[in-house]
Amino acid sequence: MSETKIPYKIYLDESEIPRQWYNMRADMKVKPAPLMNPGTHKKLAAEELAPIFCEELVKQELDDTTAYFPIPEEILDFYKMYRPSPLIRAYYLEKKLGTPAKIYYKFEGNNTSGSHKLNSAIAQAYYAKKQGLKGVTTETGAGQWGTALSMACSYFDLDCKVYMVKVSYEQKPFRREVMRTYGATVTPSPSETTEVGRKILAAHPGTTGSLGCAISEAVEVAVSNDGYRYVLGSVLNQVLLHQSVIGLETKAALDKYGVKPDIIIGCAGGGSNLGGLIAPFMGEKLRGEKDYRIIAVEPASCPSFTRGKFAYDFCDTGMICPLAKMYTLGCDFIPSPNHAGGLRFHGMSTTLSQLYHDGYMEACAVEQTSVFEAAEMFARVEGILPAPESSHAIKVAIDEALKCKETGEDKTIVFGLTGTGYFDMVAYEKFHDGLMTDQIPTDEELEASFAKLPHIEE
Amino acid sequence: MSETKIPYKIYLDESEIPRQWYNMRADMKVKPAPLMNPGTHKKLAAEELAPIFCEELVKQELDDTTAYFPIPEEILDFYKMYRPSPLIRAYYLEKKLGTPAKIYYKFEGNNTSGSHKLNSAIAQAYYAKKQGLKGVTTETGAGQWGTALSMACSYFDLDCKVYMVKVSYEQKPFRREVMRTYGATVTPSPSETTEVGRKILAAHPGTTGSLGCAISEAVEVAVSNDGYRYVLGSVLNQVLLHQSVIGLETKAALDKYGVKPDIIIGCAGGGSNLGGLIAPFMGEKLRGEKDYRIIAVEPASCPSFTRGKFAYDFCDTGMICPLAKMYTLGCDFIPSPNHAGGLRFHGMSTTLSQLYHDGYMEACAVEQTSVFEAAEMFARVEGILPAPESSHAIKVAIDEALKCKETGEDKTIVFGLTGTGYFDMVAYEKFHDGLMTDQIPTDEELEASFAKLPHIEE
Repeated sequence: MSETKIPYKIYLDESEIPRQWYNMRADMKVKPAPLMNPGTHKKLAAEELAPIFCEELVKQELDDTTAYFPIPEEILDFYKMYRPSPLIRAYYLEKKLGTPAKIYYKFEGNNTSGSHKLNSAIAQAYYAKKQGLKGVTTETGAGQWGTALSMACSYFDLDCKVYMVKVSYEQKPFRREVMRTYGATVTPSPSETTEVGRKILAAHPGTTGSLGCAISEAVEVAVSNDGYRYVLGSVLNQVLLHQSVIGLETKAALDKYGVKPDIIIGCAGGGSNLGGLIAPFMGEKLRGEKDYRIIAVEPASCPSFTRGKFAYDFCDTGMICPLAKMYTLGCDFIPSPNHAGGLRFHGMSTTLSQLYHDGYMEACAVEQTSVFEAAEMFARVEGILPAPESSHAIKVAIDEALKCKETGEDKTIVFGLTGTGYFDMVAYEKFHDGLMTDQIPTDEELEASFAKLPHIEE
Repeated sequence: MSETKIPYKIYLDESEIPRQWYNMRADMKVKPAPLMNPGTHKKLAAEELAPIFCEELVKQELDDTTAYFPIPEEILDFYKMYRPSPLIRAYYLEKKLGTPAKIYYKFEGNNTSGSHKLNSAIAQAYYAKKQGLKGVTTETGAGQWGTALSMACSYFDLDCKVYMVKVSYEQKPFRREVMRTYGATVTPSPSETTEVGRKILAAHPGTTGSLGCAISEAVEVAVSNDGYRYVLGSVLNQVLLHQSVIGLETKAALDKYGVKPDIIIGCAGGGSNLGGLIAPFMGEKLRGEKDYRIIAVEPASCPSFTRGKFAYDFCDTGMICPLAKMYTLGCDFIPSPNHAGGLRFHGMSTTLSQLYHDGYMEACAVEQTSVFEAAEMFARVEGILPAPESSHAIKVAIDEALKCKETGEDKTIVFGLTGTGYFDMVAYEKFHDGLMTDQIPTDEELEASFAKLPHIEE
């Protein structure tokens, strides 16, 4: 089909929303290493996860052989609220850069949660409802995941208890109000509502909290209340499975116009967006059908792939969650508070970690001032104000497009634009006022963190 | 076509973006009364407007005979960034209400300005660029118009000076940062940068400003700087003309599925959204081709249509702008500060005023607590967090749908969802905390305001 016929925005029809999620693990020759019990250092059994997670989600979490999972009708009904999301041809950006490269981005920000998180939130809420639960608990930092989960729970009339890191609760009252609009209970963490919260408050009066602490509170409430389970918005295999809807739609839209990408780029924090975007493309690569360059972009302030160790580690700071083999900076590692975007997780999805280890994808780390420069340029030419997280992918897409300009190659670049930055204007303000700096951990800091990794015999 | 085939979201193709704006005035038997010079009380000539507004826009403002204006290619190129906007079938809302009514809404919030304002901002920026100007000035209250204009000016590389009411500048720093992201200069008003600003500051030290004062500053800067003109985001005929793209797309989408609306509902502040949404439908009504019930919804706290006088009045508090014949509460009227949404303008588009006066449309006023109740219900079932302004239309659409439930009629209702509420969470917080009240002006207050209306011989 002729190049000029590709519209600015490719919208699939409602009937083209994927009806199955794709599980990359099924096509991996080397499977991700299993989760381990943090106490016994033995492979976790489904029964051990059942008190924390919903039954159906435990099955999805542990299944590394089933390639396709049908998406239940009830979830498809909800997907119609905001999906298919557009695949946008970045004509304005290409023109601005003067590059022969063809740039596309899959935009997941056109929903009230402001990001792709809703794709998994609605799935997790659905399985909780199906199991007859009363509600779910979770933690949230910046608030995107909490917002998505609130929307999903409201749809299925489930109770939703969100533990929000206290500093964010106070500094991001708008996100909190969006969650309240959807009927969620939002508690600043650490709080007096849990044993672990009271302990932390007693030990550190006046603490502004951490994600690790909020996770511990959310898990405690789930485990100690009848009819509640805990849900998580990234890192987990089940989340990557649900997020595969992003990549499946992207591929369907490109196939419609006969376009094959050369380079696929996504930002990587815990891996939910990247794992979702690349899923069907990685499937083809794993099966040896096609080849793609796949690039994970992480912040230089939290460089799990590029400077981390591939080892078993705790998923949470509180060391109560399972051990996972992944690229990690050590579960005590905390990126500089000056770091503006999300992508602050010390580890990485076990699936993506294995794929990176086995050479199926590349990774690079970028500094945040350059990320915000890219974000502002993108906002001006493409008209979408990107989230700081998403802007990591924008930065590298621009870099690759500029390489094409030098070499004269007309490569096709696809990147994931995971969300909008409307609730991140404090970071933009810092950038505009010249107060943003780059904070990169030293080798000594990382070595000290690695020294605390648990010793696990595999 | 069978009812069940209508998708949740109707997206027109890019090629179906309207290529002409429609000017309702051309089909009006009784034309809107002309603007008058505030000093001489004589009909304003184009030359008198030229120092303030761009030439081409003055022509559009005064032309009440040309029905269609071609949309320049450069503007169409920009429209492709975010148009066509979706027409959404409110299946979730219908189900929640249990109504036989069929509800559709045209959603203009999926762009970074967060509202329909961008449709006119890009047109006004284009004509400024075409005239070879250096830049434009404007005022902004809540910041939606300022954001839209910043985006448009960035696209055409025009300087953009925004005077933002000081209280909003301080309380809505996020909106300000979005404007800065697009390169605009945002000055809190009143400021030391203008003569009028200095005078006001001297007379009222510590004032937090008003829209009227910000207009005066923006106009002064436009008139006293070479290569600058002033632009305005509502009320004007030219703005309604540009906004007709909303209604034209809505009609095209409905026609595609053979749907004829019975009731069309829009919120009304200055009239830009309502005038745009109803344009082609009103055209049919004016030409006697079809009939529609058209309802303007205004806040009970600022009820221009339902309790105002149809008379000549100043468009601004500073009394420097032209006199317009419109439904007005008096240019000194200031709605209660407790009023949360936009829609605070004391007057109304002259075109819509004449149409209302001649019986072509209805109007109703709603109280803000009931508006926020409707907004929250809508957010929960339809997944879009609406702006307070848009929620006025939601409230009445719900009321009409519930009437259908009583009578069993399956009327087709279309309303305008002008924007998202991401930057209005302070108002939602007030609502959640039970601190929102309804503030309705007394008859005595209105009479006192009417007594100050200028005496004009027509």
